Amino acid sequence: MEFAEPLHLQSGSSISHYSLTIETYGTLNAERSNAVLVCHALNASHHVAGHYADDPQNLGWWDNMVGPGKPLDTNRFFVIGVNNLGSCFGSTGPMSLDPLTGRPYGARFPVVTVEDWVNAQARVADAFGIDRFAAVMGGSLGGMQALAWSILYPERVGHCIIVASTPKLSAQNIAFNEVARSAILSDPDFHGGDYYAHNIKPRRGLRVARMIGHITYLSDDDMASKFGRALRRAEGALDAYNFNFEVEFEVESYLRYQGDKFADFFDANTYLLITRALDYFDPAKAYDGNLTAALAGTSAQYLVISFGTDWRFAPARSREIVKALLDHKRAVTYGEIDAPHGHDAFLLDDPRYHNLVRAYYERIAEEVGA
Amino acid sequence: MEFAEPLHLQSGSSISHYSLTIETYGTLNAERSNAVLVCHALNASHHVAGHYADDPQNLGWWDNMVGPGKPLDTNRFFVIGVNNLGSCFGSTGPMSLDPLTGRPYGARFPVVTVEDWVNAQARVADAFGIDRFAAVMGGSLGGMQALAWSILYPERVGHCIIVASTPKLSAQNIAFNEVARSAILSDPDFHGGDYYAHNIKPRRGLRVARMIGHITYLSDDDMASKFGRALRRAEGALDAYNFNFEVEFEVESYLRYQGDKFADFFDANTYLLITRALDYFDPAKAYDGNLTAALAGTSAQYLVISFGTDWRFAPARSREIVKALLDHKRAVTYGEIDAPHGHDAFLLDDPRYHNLVRAYYERIAEEVGA
Repeated sequence: MEFAEPLHLQSGSSISHYSLTIETYGTLNAERSNAVLVCHALNASHHVAGHYADDPQNLGWWDNMVGPGKPLDTNRFFVIGVNNLGSCFGSTGPMSLDPLTGRPYGARFPVVTVEDWVNAQARVADAFGIDRFAAVMGGSLGGMQALAWSILYPERVGHCIIVASTPKLSAQNIAFNEVARSAILSDPDFHGGDYYAHNIKPRRGLRVARMIGHITYLSDDDMASKFGRALRRAEGALDAYNFNFEVEFEVESYLRYQGDKFADFFDANTYLLITRALDYFDPAKAYDGNLTAALAGTSAQYLVISFGTDWRFAPARSREIVKALLDHKRAVTYGEIDAPHGHDAFLLDDPRYHNLVRAYYERIAEEVGA
Repeated sequence: MEFAEPLHLQSGSSISHYSLTIETYGTLNAERSNAVLVCHALNASHHVAGHYADDPQNLGWWDNMVGPGKPLDTNRFFVIGVNNLGSCFGSTGPMSLDPLTGRPYGARFPVVTVEDWVNAQARVADAFGIDRFAAVMGGSLGGMQALAWSILYPERVGHCIIVASTPKLSAQNIAFNEVARSAILSDPDFHGGDYYAHNIKPRRGLRVARMIGHITYLSDDDMASKFGRALRRAEGALDAYNFNFEVEFEVESYLRYQGDKFADFFDANTYLLITRALDYFDPAKAYDGNLTAALAGTSAQYLVISFGTDWRFAPARSREIVKALLDHKRAVTYGEIDAPHGHDAFLLDDPRYHNLVRAYYERIAEEVGA
């Protein structure tokens, strides 16, 4: 979807012409009342559910949640996935050609915020003629977008579904992002963000960034039960140390594999942009840190879900949102799921979690006649 | 202290001739009954307490704990600090010249373990004519050495003081070490460990490694109260975002500063070696994971201390040690200190913590006539 009208960004700069890659599922009803926007987190995209005919392996990132008969049932709802501005899966981003120079934006791509993404998504809704979403939904950074939607466009959001998210990053969250960015920024192959011109990628930095991320996505207990101290050994080999710095433990093998895979498909400038958008998100900032004040203008109904072992965005962070909403007597359903999988739980198929979302969407379907 | 007798290492290799840098405090009594060995953690050294006449800024790393009138009172005890083999503060390590080649060991320095260090420390005790330590004490990795002493040389350890430690790393602990090592190993200036010959250091890797480490040393709450989301701004400047990837938050400034400082003074090969020694430590491994069985031969008395907000080596890890010791009806004093400072608490001056250690040493002093 092409946009010729400039988008003014929170930083004060603007982007004059851009495109967003979009995927939709289901059918928009005549009243246009059954639309749901699904917002993605750091490394995902518009490709929320299903697979393409020519690429059966590439399942959408929330395929267990979204689809025919799934908790967000595409037989009833019209679901839109948007690849955010600055991401690297087809939408305009640092890899795109800057019309002013004819070369990739690289480091000159403007810093974007959660609010900028929401404004860009609102134009997508406009293009579909959707005045009001039945729901805006997202997990982690996607949940921040859903929350921001309900603040910036209260009249356009019926329900706001916020999973495994937070009203703002903690110092520790920012610290992890900063280490990841430092690994990328200090990679000699980064070339100040213009690595495209050198026909290379800052793979080492991206790899380390992703390894750090992965540790924060899993719980300590989950890592213990998945890997423990098991050594990476061929069948029948001695269960003894090799005394070197190669892969020794299973958990090392897993992290290296995840890091290498990520460095293959992700763009380093996008990683910087998106982690910065995470850092900056803080709707209470304009209200002296008072989240209740920041949510005064909201009018959506809310479903907030957290996971007990999520130490990236712990349940206490979700409860801050719930508390601020209850200060305004908003209708809030809150579910704290006792899942062992840490932050990653929001992407996994847990029946208690999925049944809660399913029941909530059934209520929405009745409301909007979906 | 020079050692000409080869030291056989757990890996099967050996080191033929080596030296250890040592610092002592107080006076060894005539019975040689008042000696205490203090073992250091990742980035510390033999320089446990006090300062040198020509370098008043360089305080010993446990100066608040060790000294005249301090909890470990050097007016009563003879305290030994040993820089471990493979470290970079004067003892033989990767920066030292390999007598076989006349060049620095670099990556050819053998992998050492906690048990190897303990064996090397035992030779130091021999050189002083100390048959039995009144106590062996350490925090974090130092606590692992104290525990290993009580297993390997039960007859030579009166008391074993283990602070903020664990009987083995968890998968998550290993994962953090692996990311730190990956940052170093993938730094182009690492040159396979032979960066000395290139007259350069893998500073970028060391910097990222240290930044990761720092996050795990502090508690989430401590980071929140120290830095929160405060922006790094000149006095009177606007409290607004700059929208770039430079230092924006105070916590970023802190991490970059700590990373840069560490890259100046620490050796990358030593970082690899010491994190590997941490990974490998697991006295229960030879007993099918049964820690109780591993501690069957111990005979020391124990003081075990943990800190409530330490998420690197949480109190539950100390309690595993306590439980295994109680299975053998060993005399164990266990203190769980409700301090906000995370893992770093073991280095800080908390009165409840220090009073506990002080009282324990008073008991030892009576026992050994110190």
